[in-house]
Amino acid sequence: MTIAIVGGTGPEGSGLALRWAGAGETIVIGSRDQKRAADKAAEIADRLAGRGSGPAAQISGERNPEACRSAEIVVITIPFQSHAEMLKQLKPVLHPGQILVDATVPLAASVGGRPTRTLGVWQGSAAEQAAELVGGGVAVVAAFHNLAADLLHQDGPVDCDVIVSSDQPEASKRVRNLARKIPGVRAIDGGKLENARIVEQITALLIGLNIRHKGHSGIRITGLPPAAYDI
Amino acid sequence: MTIAIVGGTGPEGSGLALRWAGAGETIVIGSRDQKRAADKAAEIADRLAGRGSGPAAQISGERNPEACRSAEIVVITIPFQSHAEMLKQLKPVLHPGQILVDATVPLAASVGGRPTRTLGVWQGSAAEQAAELVGGGVAVVAAFHNLAADLLHQDGPVDCDVIVSSDQPEASKRVRNLARKIPGVRAIDGGKLENARIVEQITALLIGLNIRHKGHSGIRITGLPPAAYDI
Repeated sequence: MTIAIVGGTGPEGSGLALRWAGAGETIVIGSRDQKRAADKAAEIADRLAGRGSGPAAQISGERNPEACRSAEIVVITIPFQSHAEMLKQLKPVLHPGQILVDATVPLAASVGGRPTRTLGVWQGSAAEQAAELVGGGVAVVAAFHNLAADLLHQDGPVDCDVIVSSDQPEASKRVRNLARKIPGVRAIDGGKLENARIVEQITALLIGLNIRHKGHSGIRITGLPPAAYDI
Repeated sequence: MTIAIVGGTGPEGSGLALRWAGAGETIVIGSRDQKRAADKAAEIADRLAGRGSGPAAQISGERNPEACRSAEIVVITIPFQSHAEMLKQLKPVLHPGQILVDATVPLAASVGGRPTRTLGVWQGSAAEQAAELVGGGVAVVAAFHNLAADLLHQDGPVDCDVIVSSDQPEASKRVRNLARKIPGVRAIDGGKLENARIVEQITALLIGLNIRHKGHSGIRITGLPPAAYDI
């Protein structure tokens, strides 16, 4: 299975790439610029090689459309101001059977506002905007919004749950399996894609807490039976 | 210090009353009906007496306006459909220096929709609606939305953080102190009242998780320095 990460040179995308490549997944970093993508892929491979455990990382870099073409799972980690434009660009290369994972948060910072506030998105959430833009056939899954990039780039487990929302249960399950490859993550079925409206907002709240309290906050969901944290 | 709980005969309000009366606070249960309020107060006092530890609970019942009149802290735990009407009724008895704690969540269930969805509130959140309705002088603090009533009614600590949002830092601090009297709760300064927009939404997400996974979910915020969980 190949995972393409659109915006994979950014802090969130490269953090996910680091974790998944470290877990043995095949990763293609996507960027607007092929060289930047390849450089970031080499940097991540070097970092993983430095740990000296396991086989060489399967990670390369391509321009975004090329990265997406043959990937089973495409993960979008880009600022909201590029979200709609990027999805329109990618639509011609996306195809039925692929899973599009959207981690985008419509922060007001996208339009010069505060990172602790969000924009109203007509469709309800960035993920629902993505679903409208890519059309049927591509399974859209919202996940990974609340995982701080700083934590992904550290060694060791992260202390955060990932709430996964999608209208396609099979795709949601595959993404939950992928989420669990990040040490420390418990992936929770968050139900329908519309619930991304709330999960996206939580990121703005966590950013506010990070600014106020100087931390790298995440969330854990308590009180669910053990099966809720499994497949 | 006296704490009035408007809607204190409901599951959330009576759960908070139980916890705070058990911690030695003086509680007045508020209800539309004086007898129902007094009966609920007696029921909580009996339950606490049954534990056989500490002095008798300081808890009584009054009609909502009488409950609020002499309380230093007024806590609103009512369904959103009654929120604006109740605050208009209470405005004449509320006075400067009081703290109004709003735990209301604008669930779509208030108007026949789903409990996993929320309504858009013109002011941004139920708490901001409350602030507009009661006017200046009364310090509005949003808190306790994410504490499941079922957990409050159980014995033992709850596994949930309380995010406290207010434009009045002193009032926020007093409410965080009150929140910490519930065993298991860590109270976190969530910043301005506008952040209640997100905290209120989280309840709808948790209700969805409870339905889907059959649990009594709550949230914990991870990754903040220890001081963030203290005053």
